[in-house]
Amino acid sequence: MLDRKSPSGVTPSFVHPLDKGIGALDAPCVPEDVAARGWNLYDEDLSLPTAVLSQSRLEHNLAWMQRFASEYGARLAPHGKTTMAPRLFARQLEAGAWGITLATAQQTRVAYAHGVRRVLLANQLVGRRNMAMVAELLADPSFEFFCLVDGVDQVRQLAAFFGAFGQSVQVLLELGTQGGRTGVRDDAQAQAVLDALAQTQGVVRLAGVEVYEGVLKDEAVIRAFLQRAVRTLQALAQSGRLQRTPAVLSGAGSAWYDVVAEEFAKAEIGMLLEVVLRPGCYLTHDVGAYRAAQARIRTSNPIAQRMQSNLLPALQVWAYVQSVPEPELAIVALGKRDAAFDAGFPTPAAQFRPGGVSPSAVPEHWAITGMMDQHAYLKIAAGDDLRVGDMLAFDISHPCLTFDKWRQLPVIDDAGQVVDIVQTYF
Amino acid sequence: MLDRKSPSGVTPSFVHPLDKGIGALDAPCVPEDVAARGWNLYDEDLSLPTAVLSQSRLEHNLAWMQRFASEYGARLAPHGKTTMAPRLFARQLEAGAWGITLATAQQTRVAYAHGVRRVLLANQLVGRRNMAMVAELLADPSFEFFCLVDGVDQVRQLAAFFGAFGQSVQVLLELGTQGGRTGVRDDAQAQAVLDALAQTQGVVRLAGVEVYEGVLKDEAVIRAFLQRAVRTLQALAQSGRLQRTPAVLSGAGSAWYDVVAEEFAKAEIGMLLEVVLRPGCYLTHDVGAYRAAQARIRTSNPIAQRMQSNLLPALQVWAYVQSVPEPELAIVALGKRDAAFDAGFPTPAAQFRPGGVSPSAVPEHWAITGMMDQHAYLKIAAGDDLRVGDMLAFDISHPCLTFDKWRQLPVIDDAGQVVDIVQTYF
Repeated sequence: MLDRKSPSGVTPSFVHPLDKGIGALDAPCVPEDVAARGWNLYDEDLSLPTAVLSQSRLEHNLAWMQRFASEYGARLAPHGKTTMAPRLFARQLEAGAWGITLATAQQTRVAYAHGVRRVLLANQLVGRRNMAMVAELLADPSFEFFCLVDGVDQVRQLAAFFGAFGQSVQVLLELGTQGGRTGVRDDAQAQAVLDALAQTQGVVRLAGVEVYEGVLKDEAVIRAFLQRAVRTLQALAQSGRLQRTPAVLSGAGSAWYDVVAEEFAKAEIGMLLEVVLRPGCYLTHDVGAYRAAQARIRTSNPIAQRMQSNLLPALQVWAYVQSVPEPELAIVALGKRDAAFDAGFPTPAAQFRPGGVSPSAVPEHWAITGMMDQHAYLKIAAGDDLRVGDMLAFDISHPCLTFDKWRQLPVIDDAGQVVDIVQTYF
Repeated sequence: MLDRKSPSGVTPSFVHPLDKGIGALDAPCVPEDVAARGWNLYDEDLSLPTAVLSQSRLEHNLAWMQRFASEYGARLAPHGKTTMAPRLFARQLEAGAWGITLATAQQTRVAYAHGVRRVLLANQLVGRRNMAMVAELLADPSFEFFCLVDGVDQVRQLAAFFGAFGQSVQVLLELGTQGGRTGVRDDAQAQAVLDALAQTQGVVRLAGVEVYEGVLKDEAVIRAFLQRAVRTLQALAQSGRLQRTPAVLSGAGSAWYDVVAEEFAKAEIGMLLEVVLRPGCYLTHDVGAYRAAQARIRTSNPIAQRMQSNLLPALQVWAYVQSVPEPELAIVALGKRDAAFDAGFPTPAAQFRPGGVSPSAVPEHWAITGMMDQHAYLKIAAGDDLRVGDMLAFDISHPCLTFDKWRQLPVIDDAGQVVDIVQTYF
């Protein structure tokens, strides 16, 4: 649900001459004007390091995941915290997404301000100012919102706040696992939350059940957990506890969305049901944890097998070689400020020497062995053809912690031409 | 050197209603208007998580380091990449700093646009657009700039670019160590760079010598490295290679600035000399690596011993407890998006229950055991008085990677009142 008519008081976001990773600007400009600048990555028009998105791959991934969800009859609420880029939210919604998933009240406001009209806050909503931020949005009847509950104190705090505003708020009961993250561990905790919900007299309204299976690692354990969620929802439906039709059953990070789709798509709860999947990283994919997860999916999932293509890495960070002080060591002007490093270092993917014709693949033995705030150590072999001023492209692992390092991400075509720019709101 | 008269075409930076970690705003406002809003941390006026700076501690640290450098007759060029906050650059310069150190061309432009008129780029300057960004600033005769050189290719690239502009650029010869980061490893590499500099015919002008000792861990090795820098500078001075008076001798990250000050302050090179120290993290300090480093300095450095006080942690991240799903586990709405996690997790420091009088210290056994993008796992003990909705303050380790998670950092007084706001330009 994207409301194009409602800028909601948001001021236009400018690309500013002082922003990192862009080309020359005399003055701030709107994103729509960037393509006309004629910036090209390979002409060194951009200040490196820069993080670029591949337009064709973004479009491919966008369509791929929407089709996958649709094959299961599931709804997609892509996790927007990955990119925090309203222009990408808009494309996800236009491609058919049911809503956008977010992690905080601030993220919810960013989405709303850019026209998103259905948000699943995959978190507990806590704190006076955070609740007030949501309450302001709930004054708009076209805005649908859900957050999670897993504790009595929290239900009471929601009831006190929204009740005082004369508002109601929709929630999903979050199930969790022992040693996991949030979520009720057992039936007793769940029952206590349900009792607390009943006491709110309609202020806090139960719309369904939610899980985040991504804290688990074993498929059998994950399937059992998902089946528990289905059983819980069935019981809630039978006992008349659900205050939204269709009911909502939601799960899935970016690693197990196939298993969640399989388990949830076959759920029968005796009332209308929306199964909502929440992957976020698919849009840019990566060459780390999510490539590994996707390899499993391509091998084991019948729908993924039938689809002619796969998710593609769509986000790269480019940086210059700034020093080759030893025969087997290059220092690259790429740091922890520029790319995620918590799930594996960036992987060198291509080399381009300014003035050359096109980028080339890099030797397999090149690897980043360490990163500092603004530098990376690149292991090479003596005699490799690498010199100061060469541009290197790095594939990344963990898109979320790469996006949040950039306020502007140029979108390039396959010839390196900047055709658009994506702004983030972290 | 701070030029207050020159906004250099920079548009005013607004605090935007959609920014993370701030209070309620109906419309964008300038930072100068924030104090009048009356936001108070303890009244839950801010959306948590938020990163706050202590006004009194910032002022204390600012004065402490300036005095320390002055006692050695050294100049201070604080590393601005830590905060990337021009308002803090301005305070550092007003306190007596000689210039600001930065890591990239983009950072240099941010500083210049906010009035900084002397920048030491503690990096090699590489790439067409990056050089062009600096060339534009060099058109201002009131702007003094230095970058580092450690390779022949790089000197030639600088000469070709700036020569074509009819400009010259000042550089410092960077010395490095085997297995270290950038910098010439030995005399042969240094000589090759000097020969290349001579061939630029005054386009690339040698102003002195630079080291970054922070990649070394052993004090004796560091002292030997610093002495090598002094000897190198002496030889350059004697051979008439230096093209700036005073010459510049620069070193020091935030962990060994005392040793650098000791070794460099006694250098005699036969011509006027400016010793330039470049710590960055002192401004907010931390409770991790820099607290450990500072403990050594307080014990061993005679000037630090004489000073009546020490650096104080001035940056904290506040977040809500969002779930207490197990007796020994709380989940906090604080993630890798909000605080550095690469040099130790944030450390719980204080607890405040909304409606209470003042924050209290937390039990020593509370500790973060893991972080995800938007969540932290807090280990507690069964029966501890902690509940959903409690606010927790976390001290941090590694200020650089905490600052870069925030576009706005409220500055608070000792009563939690927001008295100012600091904007970052990452």
